[in-house]
Amino acid sequence: MKIGIIGLGLMGGSFALALKKRFKDRDEKLDVIGYDHNDQHCLEALELKIADKITDDIQDLFNLDLIVLTIPVNAILKILPELKGISTDTTIIDFGSTKEKIVNAIPKEIRANFVASHPMTGTEKFGPKAADRKLYRGKVVVICNSEDNDKEHLKFAKDIFRDIGMKIFYMDAKEHDKHAAYISHMPHAVSYALSNAVMNQENPKAVLALAGGGFKDMSRIAKSSPNMWIDIFKQNKDNLLTATKHFKDELNMLEEYIENDEWESLKSWIEKANKLHEIL
Amino acid sequence: MKIGIIGLGLMGGSFALALKKRFKDRDEKLDVIGYDHNDQHCLEALELKIADKITDDIQDLFNLDLIVLTIPVNAILKILPELKGISTDTTIIDFGSTKEKIVNAIPKEIRANFVASHPMTGTEKFGPKAADRKLYRGKVVVICNSEDNDKEHLKFAKDIFRDIGMKIFYMDAKEHDKHAAYISHMPHAVSYALSNAVMNQENPKAVLALAGGGFKDMSRIAKSSPNMWIDIFKQNKDNLLTATKHFKDELNMLEEYIENDEWESLKSWIEKANKLHEIL
Repeated sequence: MKIGIIGLGLMGGSFALALKKRFKDRDEKLDVIGYDHNDQHCLEALELKIADKITDDIQDLFNLDLIVLTIPVNAILKILPELKGISTDTTIIDFGSTKEKIVNAIPKEIRANFVASHPMTGTEKFGPKAADRKLYRGKVVVICNSEDNDKEHLKFAKDIFRDIGMKIFYMDAKEHDKHAAYISHMPHAVSYALSNAVMNQENPKAVLALAGGGFKDMSRIAKSSPNMWIDIFKQNKDNLLTATKHFKDELNMLEEYIENDEWESLKSWIEKANKLHEIL
Repeated sequence: MKIGIIGLGLMGGSFALALKKRFKDRDEKLDVIGYDHNDQHCLEALELKIADKITDDIQDLFNLDLIVLTIPVNAILKILPELKGISTDTTIIDFGSTKEKIVNAIPKEIRANFVASHPMTGTEKFGPKAADRKLYRGKVVVICNSEDNDKEHLKFAKDIFRDIGMKIFYMDAKEHDKHAAYISHMPHAVSYALSNAVMNQENPKAVLALAGGGFKDMSRIAKSSPNMWIDIFKQNKDNLLTATKHFKDELNMLEEYIENDEWESLKSWIEKANKLHEIL
């Protein structure tokens, strides 16, 4: 099998490593061609055996079995018109964290072979050196608007996802973006705000010396790359602002209970939050 | 050595298990007497070998080498007047998450032997069954207002903390409570609010099915016990409200940048948050 990876960072690198391991275990051949505007990342991807070959001509990818788009969401929007010439035999998968604007922008020539996906995994790290072949194992991938896909391309994409150990969910792109705002995009905004609230203290080092597991967990994603996240915030602006508003409503409620010594109401409010335990 | 543990939950149980392991490794004898209003917890503590004996008469602890108070902060305030009769040879350590009200309420008869401490560790779990002998290893403990301690009692407490692998910091109780609001109490409030924002969605299960590592990390402490945390919020009310206000100021800033498409300002704001990486 021959695949092309557009974007040799954490997501693309981890995907290539995961698939290579599966193919190696079965003694099957997998060729990975990498494409990335960042020359340093191209070199690192070769060194780390993420890619077997690098090309700077995107048309070299147009007749492969699979192309994976693992670039920031605005870069996906920008590159889509260039992909019109891809063979209708090539399955295309994108890994963008927002989906509505992307599915609306897929050129009609490649709509049937373009499987719009969002793997619900990642870390605060980035670049090929952050790649981890276990990143996708046991994680959820959401496939959006699959009714617009050719059945064979959809099946091929699903087989690949299952091969690297993922659980598949299906969702409308609009619904995906709303849910993703609550479960991923707003939490990133909250983590950045938490980090800044501490970094603005007179002596942040003294405060951070006291950090236990709770703060470390809550601030981990505040280390995430601004370029990637500004793109996501841009593309999912309205849903994100609705989610941060709902989050602030909840925090205001806690503040009011505490200010007014309404401890019984605060207890019920916390017990509601505790119920997360039953689901997650 | 004979020690008494007042409060046989996660913190007290983990402390006893950690110390027992150290003593066993050195072939030394350690007797642990447990005291807890919850009969079920007393039984579990015996079964789990957290305590060797249980007493319901607090005076049985008054002539031991060490007493550790591992009960919620308001329970510490309530029990303090009952502890006046403790021998001046007994070292007392409390593990309360707030410190100013506690140090102000220590009876003068036991002030010299009472080492006010806050170990910066814990989990969202509670009860003796949650006890973990590695809970304290490598973690920070803050000792407050140590200038009010007798040197020998302070040294004894420090030796115990170092024995179970902790790093010691010293701080004024007032300063501790301010810092703890930012690094621990406000983050708990934020995590509860995050959980409630999702639990209030029409179909929380569908949203939570998409949870990746980021959301899981950020919502973990939203599973923490309401009783313990309401006590902490009560005792550190003013500092907590100041910290949540600063946090909301930061989140409002993000919202404003996004609403007004001020992407360059948002980038600088995120890059500031990223700097946490250099310290933590």
